[in-house]
Amino acid sequence: MTSSRLIDSLATTDVLAALFSDASVLQAMIDFEVALARAAARAGAIPEQAADGIARAARVEGLDAAAIARDARHSATPSIPFVNALRDQVRAVDSGSAQFLHWGATSQDVSDTALVLLLKRAHVILARDHTRLEVALAQLSDAHATTVMLGRTLLQPATPITFGLKAAGWYAAVSRSWSRLSQAWDDAAVVQFGGAAGTRAAAGEHADAIASALAAQLGLAPAPPWHTDRDRLGALITALGLYTAALGKIARDVALLMQAEVAEVFEAGGGSSTLPHKRNPSGCAVVLAAATRMPGLVAAFLFGMLQEHERSVGGSQAEWSTVASGVQTAGGAVAAMATVIEDLTVDSARMRANIDATHGVVFAERALMLLTPKMGRDAAQQVVTTAIEATRATGRSFGEVLRKTPAASDVLTAEDLLGIDEPERYLGTAEALRKQLLDRVPLGRTE
Amino acid sequence: MTSSRLIDSLATTDVLAALFSDASVLQAMIDFEVALARAAARAGAIPEQAADGIARAARVEGLDAAAIARDARHSATPSIPFVNALRDQVRAVDSGSAQFLHWGATSQDVSDTALVLLLKRAHVILARDHTRLEVALAQLSDAHATTVMLGRTLLQPATPITFGLKAAGWYAAVSRSWSRLSQAWDDAAVVQFGGAAGTRAAAGEHADAIASALAAQLGLAPAPPWHTDRDRLGALITALGLYTAALGKIARDVALLMQAEVAEVFEAGGGSSTLPHKRNPSGCAVVLAAATRMPGLVAAFLFGMLQEHERSVGGSQAEWSTVASGVQTAGGAVAAMATVIEDLTVDSARMRANIDATHGVVFAERALMLLTPKMGRDAAQQVVTTAIEATRATGRSFGEVLRKTPAASDVLTAEDLLGIDEPERYLGTAEALRKQLLDRVPLGRTE
Amino acid sequence: MTSSRLIDSLATTDVLAALFSDASVLQAMIDFEVALARAAARAGAIPEQAADGIARAARVEGLDAAAIARDARHSATPSIPFVNALRDQVRAVDSGSAQFLHWGATSQDVSDTALVLLLKRAHVILARDHTRLEVALAQLSDAHATTVMLGRTLLQPATPITFGLKAAGWYAAVSRSWSRLSQAWDDAAVVQFGGAAGTRAAAGEHADAIASALAAQLGLAPAPPWHTDRDRLGALITALGLYTAALGKIARDVALLMQAEVAEVFEAGGGSSTLPHKRNPSGCAVVLAAATRMPGLVAAFLFGMLQEHERSVGGSQAEWSTVASGVQTAGGAVAAMATVIEDLTVDSARMRANIDATHGVVFAERALMLLTPKMGRDAAQQVVTTAIEATRATGRSFGEVLRKTPAASDVLTAEDLLGIDEPERYLGTAEALRKQLLDRVPLGRTE
Amino acid sequence: MTSSRLIDSLATTDVLAALFSDASVLQAMIDFEVALARAAARAGAIPEQAADGIARAARVEGLDAAAIARDARHSATPSIPFVNALRDQVRAVDSGSAQFLHWGATSQDVSDTALVLLLKRAHVILARDHTRLEVALAQLSDAHATTVMLGRTLLQPATPITFGLKAAGWYAAVSRSWSRLSQAWDDAAVVQFGGAAGTRAAAGEHADAIASALAAQLGLAPAPPWHTDRDRLGALITALGLYTAALGKIARDVALLMQAEVAEVFEAGGGSSTLPHKRNPSGCAVVLAAATRMPGLVAAFLFGMLQEHERSVGGSQAEWSTVASGVQTAGGAVAAMATVIEDLTVDSARMRANIDATHGVVFAERALMLLTPKMGRDAAQQVVTTAIEATRATGRSFGEVLRKTPAASDVLTAEDLLGIDEPERYLGTAEALRKQLLDRVPLGRTE
Repeated sequence: MTSSRLIDSLATTDVLAALFSDASVLQAMIDFEVALARAAARAGAIPEQAADGIARAARVEGLDAAAIARDARHSATPSIPFVNALRDQVRAVDSGSAQFLHWGATSQDVSDTALVLLLKRAHVILARDHTRLEVALAQLSDAHATTVMLGRTLLQPATPITFGLKAAGWYAAVSRSWSRLSQAWDDAAVVQFGGAAGTRAAAGEHADAIASALAAQLGLAPAPPWHTDRDRLGALITALGLYTAALGKIARDVALLMQAEVAEVFEAGGGSSTLPHKRNPSGCAVVLAAATRMPGLVAAFLFGMLQEHERSVGGSQAEWSTVASGVQTAGGAVAAMATVIEDLTVDSARMRANIDATHGVVFAERALMLLTPKMGRDAAQQVVTTAIEATRATGRSFGEVLRKTPAASDVLTAEDLLGIDEPERYLGTAEALRKQLLDRVPLGRTE
Repeated sequence: MTSSRLIDSLATTDVLAALFSDASVLQAMIDFEVALARAAARAGAIPEQAADGIARAARVEGLDAAAIARDARHSATPSIPFVNALRDQVRAVDSGSAQFLHWGATSQDVSDTALVLLLKRAHVILARDHTRLEVALAQLSDAHATTVMLGRTLLQPATPITFGLKAAGWYAAVSRSWSRLSQAWDDAAVVQFGGAAGTRAAAGEHADAIASALAAQLGLAPAPPWHTDRDRLGALITALGLYTAALGKIARDVALLMQAEVAEVFEAGGGSSTLPHKRNPSGCAVVLAAATRMPGLVAAFLFGMLQEHERSVGGSQAEWSTVASGVQTAGGAVAAMATVIEDLTVDSARMRANIDATHGVVFAERALMLLTPKMGRDAAQQVVTTAIEATRATGRSFGEVLRKTPAASDVLTAEDLLGIDEPERYLGTAEALRKQLLDRVPLGRTE
Repeated sequence: MTSSRLIDSLATTDVLAALFSDASVLQAMIDFEVALARAAARAGAIPEQAADGIARAARVEGLDAAAIARDARHSATPSIPFVNALRDQVRAVDSGSAQFLHWGATSQDVSDTALVLLLKRAHVILARDHTRLEVALAQLSDAHATTVMLGRTLLQPATPITFGLKAAGWYAAVSRSWSRLSQAWDDAAVVQFGGAAGTRAAAGEHADAIASALAAQLGLAPAPPWHTDRDRLGALITALGLYTAALGKIARDVALLMQAEVAEVFEAGGGSSTLPHKRNPSGCAVVLAAATRMPGLVAAFLFGMLQEHERSVGGSQAEWSTVASGVQTAGGAVAAMATVIEDLTVDSARMRANIDATHGVVFAERALMLLTPKMGRDAAQQVVTTAIEATRATGRSFGEVLRKTPAASDVLTAEDLLGIDEPERYLGTAEALRKQLLDRVPLGRTE
Repeated sequence: MTSSRLIDSLATTDVLAALFSDASVLQAMIDFEVALARAAARAGAIPEQAADGIARAARVEGLDAAAIARDARHSATPSIPFVNALRDQVRAVDSGSAQFLHWGATSQDVSDTALVLLLKRAHVILARDHTRLEVALAQLSDAHATTVMLGRTLLQPATPITFGLKAAGWYAAVSRSWSRLSQAWDDAAVVQFGGAAGTRAAAGEHADAIASALAAQLGLAPAPPWHTDRDRLGALITALGLYTAALGKIARDVALLMQAEVAEVFEAGGGSSTLPHKRNPSGCAVVLAAATRMPGLVAAFLFGMLQEHERSVGGSQAEWSTVASGVQTAGGAVAAMATVIEDLTVDSARMRANIDATHGVVFAERALMLLTPKMGRDAAQQVVTTAIEATRATGRSFGEVLRKTPAASDVLTAEDLLGIDEPERYLGTAEALRKQLLDRVPLGRTE
């Protein structure tokens, strides 16, 4: 039990924890070194059999992750002890090939490219859960296109909306955020290959050929070295931050709607260790925990971007941990959120009941808008305020009060008067907006 | 002197401070209300003369910003006291029009749209300084395409680079970052018009027509209400964060290169209150201060995105201050950085002298790469290490030592031996990379 | 209207905005220079009449804050243009004295000490509102010592508590947090006087005497220079962060309790621009906005603490803005919170009604604890779960169901059975805990 | 290799990674449950043999950490699956005792107390490294009490200091910061025992007795429940933030002093994967990486403190991960820093040579202070400026130039003139300040 799954249990998923496990990280580092050897051989910089030898000998199993981690703290990078250990491993099998390992590369070439390889796999993992979420949100919105509920502002009842509109807003925000994130992810899928100071000098005349072949081998885009230009990774982690925040907004809404006193929607899960009657917003709690932790990770990454000259002292060394946390945090959040939405129970009757429980005072704005053209805003305001007071004092509904207020009943049409507190009549363009949100205009970029 | 220019003096510029001044904020809010009135009149929702009356009467001069700010703390938004004060102002001139003010809108419609209008103007301001910076960086890079200098990793001498490559790296990072930022800025230029709960119900049958006309009037894109979906603003502020970080990296490099012991480049300005001899990296200090403050502003915005239901309690109320700080911080940074680069003095001779001062040990990697194919990596490493030790012990140059080391001189060509410590011979593909960076591939989006 | 009150209106108070206004900042800087002159004269370093001349001539009125702010951006500190402007001002009145201005000091001596002087005054301002809050919370707790309400966990009903206990928890947290903050504030009230590199060399043989006299003049503690050791300020801003978070927790609770569906407490204020019926948690929104922005300010300060050598490039230049924002943010929050609590309306009947509305299922734990000793935990769990299901199915109360469940009624005492769903019988040691919280043990430090 | 040591290798130490490993976390949770059973038995709430049975049966070995972690994501806490698994384990051995497990407690009681227990052990671990660091810094300062070096402000040469003073400043800042941290750590060592809603109702009449006995068993202080009052943990993590920042300042200084062009101090370690000549500031890089990541963790914790009612949804669920990261980050930093300082090599000759390399212009301030009383500040400034220009133009030293400047040589004493550029004569009160810093005044609290 040397792993630390428990302390971080709410901050990842099993599949993402596995992605960032020692075995997986070492494999990604090996993938870089093997691809580099193949690329160097292809370019004629090293013998083909050296590349074969490296490919044959390099094995995660023979490496001691704990020892590499320990040594990493002395060289300020896991790459140096990794390359040393890998060279020993190759040398044991094929001493001739070992000297061609890590040809022309620097430690940051392997650590950065390995990270990028892991990130690429993470993209696929998160995309799966994001798709689940998008589909579930769109279905939820469609299913409740006409389900009326209270709009709530500053946690107080405002005018009515539809639950379909609310879900469409959730959909559009996560969808736009995913679009940005996915773009950032693609932009970040670039190889790192620069050598000691980013000129590829050690790779000699073959440098460009190696760089291209290496990128192709790994399925990454080629690019000039970016040892201290971390904006692509930065764009990814800020996009993860925005995406997680969009999930957090949904989670906060759902948790609020699940309150016993509101009781409009319910997560499927969530028991308690002591209270047999409870049904907790557990999925929302996981998402909100993620959204609580994410902004600090984003800030850490941004601060770490002030990287000195051709390799930094501090900034880059902070990144692996921050980026891996960020990806796992966002990934844990979207997995939880997708499940929450897929299994969400909606109580439409309670939604309407909660409107009714306001005694119709949420329709005061509607009355005001109808009365103003007839009598001017000040008089209208006076009528409405008096009616609200009467509603509160008597317990009768606002509509009833208004219908018995001559100042109002004399000027409004019968239809307006009768329907003054029917939520369906005061939804504005909710349905048109809902459709727009589901069918959203792209963000001015290829998606 | 009720303003607070001094305490924030290093965190803004005069033109940006003016943009976010009370007069400017009030004008933006008035612009919204006048455009709304015009749009509502055009849609037939209110009389044309009401729109005229509002447009005629609404004047920044008559409003008491301090009083509105004070009242804002009671209603948790400046919009309510603003609309009340503006209504009084209009009523004094034209009581009939006053009742049609703020037609169908909610307080967040005016505060959000006003912010967006200010941001749009900020875009133009920052773009001006960014262009200055890009031009200066490209010129700097071209001018020093062949100027050799030390590459430095972890603040230690690494293999040589050109100053042109370094400047091209700066260029490419800020250029990519501006591209992202500019896109985010365009995406954020959307109108807010949703009414109380985001359904535009109060605007009645004219809602869509008003929304479109309003957006057109203000030169903004139309969009469904986004009262609690803050991802567009979030994308802007995170992009500001990335951009400022890219500036901060340059500032850190310049400040380090300006150290008296390094003395490779110099800012034009920067005296001291006590030390008559000093030449401080003052512009860099302003940029680094900005880069120090920015990540926290980004985090604050992300935290605030967990906005409840149809209007938040806390999150949105934190935004004006955070966004205005973020824009001013980034804007102050780019203005300072542009000036630093435009006026930068470069000491090419000192750059070369600093290479020489290493006695050539930075070419150890080169020797290693040349020797390895001849004798295997382990033997080569041994030769090089011995030569470095001799260099350190004797004070002779690494090249000289190597030329007198039979193990090396027997296997290397005369040309390789003679040029072993010439930086020009160990620049790899620096010039090709430099050109790539200046002529960078776009980021997979329309720019 | 060159000030920027509106954009920051929810992030400060009038009195704190005035404290950090240009006039106030300049006065604090003048206070330092005058006190320094007096101290230097007392120590015999400069003539007494020079000190008199400086004291007589130095006037906020004659200084151009906007120009100083502008120049600050060229020297990376407001101190240099300030000292220059002040010297001109003194020279115009008394040219002999002008040369003794700023004797032995460096620019950071004046900017740091001025900040400390402003902070000391801020302490008094916040203390006033904190005291209001503490008194109001203690009274609220006492007044509701026996008012039962739902405890709520993960926003779901848990077992009952008293509102007095809840308010006592609020009290204890803000009280402990104020204790830490107040200590940090006192610790930070130290003079800065170090000269160019922190050795006080320019002050010559009189250095120590000047330093002591200066501190005494200004009512600050003496200390070795701390130009790049910012931990005292850091402790202050982190303590402001903790304090604001404690306020934010109260605000979140109050805003949740104010929801129409919960309706247990109410703020006094808070209208809406569009909805005449609304009563918003406006004070809570101001507090929550502060709590949203504060963690980023804390992070920014911590980032900036990595200050180079004897004066930093970037870190210190970020501080004025961050610290002033932090103080105003916390100060705005406590002012708003104190008013919210002082004027809070509590609906005890609704609190009880909300317990009743659970149909007693929140007493399931109580039943479980009573039944377990009689029949073992598994059997007890079975009985309780069945009873909860029956409660949900029938709409009868949990107590009623249980009383008709032989498995329960056969083993429980009549008293236990009858009182099973009386909240007063399941409050544990709430009242004792409440008293402990109000009469809290100090934090292991002198308070 | 399911553990994730590599990705976080630079963000922890072996001993701290072990402390937060699954085995250790489970043991701490078991420690709580066993102590609770003993306390409940002592209080007469459960049978003594039940406590014995629980103590005998509870074993880390039988628990499946991975399964508990997975289930944690469904209940939003590891405590529920942990208690279930532990109950199964106990039941398998002693079914009678199993029902008395977790008596009167809630899930947060076990997760919070387990965390506190781990933190207490972490305190001891960090204290060990902190003591190493303090001792090494004090020795370093004493050893270099008279070693002169450049003071540097904004990375430019300022007046001279001693390395002893610089090290004493480092000492004092970490020492004050440790004092705050240690206090916060002690304050946070409180038990959590509140039951479902913090009233201890489930523990019945025995509640207080159980709470006291539980605290005593675990060596923690008793306290009222603090389920949503996280200020003690918050004070700990902010103090960790301040402490890490103080370490980061030292690391930044050392890394800068290690630059080849400065070359005044050297870390012992730090090779490179490609550059055989390099000696990297690897320890400093680890510390600076920690200081880069820490502020974001602090911000995350502060934001998470806005915890709802009696148990939060999101805030508390974010804590384990954040706090464990924070402790490991700070712990990794102090371990690395202690080693750096213990093994630091200092080149005093180079320190002096770097002063000499300024040609004495850093003594311009000294000349100005000596000349001003003789001729007034403006004339003195003129003389000094001319001398600096001559120094720069001719390459002669500032002292030499000044000695040949009649305006200066006519008015200064021979001794002043001769010693004008001797650093030892312009150290002000450096030595007295050094002693004060090493013998620092306590922070107004019991230490």
